[in-house]
Amino acid sequence: MEHEIIEFLMALVAIFFGAKLFGEVSIRLGYPSVMGELIAGIILGGSVLHLIPESGTIVLLAEVGVIILLFEIGLETELKELLKVGTKSLAVAAVGVIAPFAGGWIFASALGLDGIAPIFLGAALTATSVGITSKVLVDLGKLSSKTGRIILGAAVIDDIIGLIILAVMNDLAKAGAVQLSQIAVITGKAIGFLAVFIIVGKIAVPFLMNHVEKMKGRGSLAILGLGFAFLAGVMANSVESAMIVGAFAAGLVIPSVRNEPLVKELKPIADFFTPIFFVHVGSLVNVSYFNPFNPANKQILIIGLGLIVVAIIGKLICGFSVFDKDVNKLAIGVGMIPRGEVGLIFAEIGRRSGAINNELFAAVVVMVGITTFIAPPLLKMILQVKEAPIFVEAEEDLA
Amino acid sequence: MEHEIIEFLMALVAIFFGAKLFGEVSIRLGYPSVMGELIAGIILGGSVLHLIPESGTIVLLAEVGVIILLFEIGLETELKELLKVGTKSLAVAAVGVIAPFAGGWIFASALGLDGIAPIFLGAALTATSVGITSKVLVDLGKLSSKTGRIILGAAVIDDIIGLIILAVMNDLAKAGAVQLSQIAVITGKAIGFLAVFIIVGKIAVPFLMNHVEKMKGRGSLAILGLGFAFLAGVMANSVESAMIVGAFAAGLVIPSVRNEPLVKELKPIADFFTPIFFVHVGSLVNVSYFNPFNPANKQILIIGLGLIVVAIIGKLICGFSVFDKDVNKLAIGVGMIPRGEVGLIFAEIGRRSGAINNELFAAVVVMVGITTFIAPPLLKMILQVKEAPIFVEAEEDLA
Repeated sequence: MEHEIIEFLMALVAIFFGAKLFGEVSIRLGYPSVMGELIAGIILGGSVLHLIPESGTIVLLAEVGVIILLFEIGLETELKELLKVGTKSLAVAAVGVIAPFAGGWIFASALGLDGIAPIFLGAALTATSVGITSKVLVDLGKLSSKTGRIILGAAVIDDIIGLIILAVMNDLAKAGAVQLSQIAVITGKAIGFLAVFIIVGKIAVPFLMNHVEKMKGRGSLAILGLGFAFLAGVMANSVESAMIVGAFAAGLVIPSVRNEPLVKELKPIADFFTPIFFVHVGSLVNVSYFNPFNPANKQILIIGLGLIVVAIIGKLICGFSVFDKDVNKLAIGVGMIPRGEVGLIFAEIGRRSGAINNELFAAVVVMVGITTFIAPPLLKMILQVKEAPIFVEAEEDLA
Repeated sequence: MEHEIIEFLMALVAIFFGAKLFGEVSIRLGYPSVMGELIAGIILGGSVLHLIPESGTIVLLAEVGVIILLFEIGLETELKELLKVGTKSLAVAAVGVIAPFAGGWIFASALGLDGIAPIFLGAALTATSVGITSKVLVDLGKLSSKTGRIILGAAVIDDIIGLIILAVMNDLAKAGAVQLSQIAVITGKAIGFLAVFIIVGKIAVPFLMNHVEKMKGRGSLAILGLGFAFLAGVMANSVESAMIVGAFAAGLVIPSVRNEPLVKELKPIADFFTPIFFVHVGSLVNVSYFNPFNPANKQILIIGLGLIVVAIIGKLICGFSVFDKDVNKLAIGVGMIPRGEVGLIFAEIGRRSGAINNELFAAVVVMVGITTFIAPPLLKMILQVKEAPIFVEAEEDLA
């Protein structure tokens, strides 16, 4: 026990100091802090310094970190504003899943792969990391702009679709086949849950808040708010949806006219947990695959490069599925690029089931690493060059 | 992994809702919130609802909770003011260790126990839970009163002595003997560490803060402050002192004239973690021992009652080792009563080594439960009845 707590505290110390140091450098260079936190993760992680454990308490806290992050983002998001761009987000999400999926499948088949490997590679390219995308938007102050809302909505929908695909892939890996009726059931449950949760929440939460706001205990608002978010996450998980989608919905249903004290109390708690998540994601990227001087990596890097191209083009296309002069189409596409931890989960399932070999797994890791790291600086560049000639029109900013 | 995170989140939800509900009831009834959190722990714990795991991540977070609590208390404590009452705290701690130790030993011998059992029972009565005592003082707003400072200082010293006794007991349990030279070495290391840490910290920390205060990343102050506290805890542990003593020292060396923003950012994080600690401590108390209708408990309750009397009188005496008209001697004694988790650790070592049997272990648990629970309301009563005839004189309040 004592050994365990010492090891845990030292991992936290490494994460905190690393995240803050690299996050600060990132900010000073003009990039979002999440960039630096991801880089800190690579350096502290298993492929370099081995300071971040790959399982156990740190991973649980990383999960708590992304749940708190999405709860916080839900709190800062107006449901009404999100619904206004709902069909646009849906179009972006749909195109952003179909294009890279098809592209990955075709690319893998062109490589001569057969069996279910092409399907797996296609699937691994589909899911955007809503955690990374939304944090970049927060860092850039663009979460409540129209473009930001479309990206956020699309990333959340993409996460729901991603989990449906994951369930399908799981069946495919285990049974070699998949039933359409089952896909329909999973989809129905995920959407039904969100609808019921939001409707019931919008009615019940204001009543509950009347009582919570009267409580005298220190920090009651934030702690009970988090309890609610965690519960929503567990509920979402129980209908095979993503925990972070539940937490996001929990934030959405808390009336924004009275959530200011909660948001304020929550901030330092989020500051504690979210760097753990980003450092953890960074630590999952094995940089040894990126060494071009290692001959064993040649094949990996070539396939990885192909996947990166498909991954980027597949998501860039989705921005142009929005027909609206007021939004930055290129920014939407770029905002959907980072694959983060979700792509790695796909790859891991594929590897464990034998659907893809170690080389293809490594190529996916390369793709995830690059897409995760190029998105934050690119998005910053695009969103801040207001007068770019073709893609960027007047950005209506609600912030 | 998924099962693990769900279980973890549900435990957090139970802790948060339980702590806030019972904490609020406690406050409304006029008691410190920590009372309610401890009761929530009993109800949620292994002897009633089995909702709090006895090992794993929750226990690690409970440890983080008490470390953050002591860091926070260190931040709110003026080193100068603490040193002013240093000799008084030392006297209180010394008497408060010797009296219950001797009393427990004599009581156990009178019961006819032999071998090292009487020594163990005596030792289990010595250590005050600095976490519980200091949180009660914070809840009552008495941390910076002279009485409060004497209690706090004595509880911290008591913790250092407690760990020395623990090391001695460990040796006694393993080897059946103990070397005086080793006690001297442990004591020297613990005191030397504190002295060096505080001197170096007082010089180095202001320089470091010049840089940290200029950082632009969100929450840098709190996160780096906590990293420092965790590091101090690990350092203290490496010289066989208590982690919470290290964290307390980390708080002490941060100049109080400029720690206000840090204290503010830290509060919500402490609000997140400290209830986990108190609920965890409560969950360790097995209430089935308290059932007087179970004949198996008769012996346990009788011995437990004896231990409680010795435990209370032993600490009450220590308040009267202070010769100062301005302090509340009774409050000092009562403030030192709660044994909390430290007493349980002693008992557990004794049981595992075979020095005490299951019945004596249960009696110690009864003693810990009662001393932990009577102290908060008693302390509140004593500190708020300003005009009590004999014990309470003018309370000089610095708050």
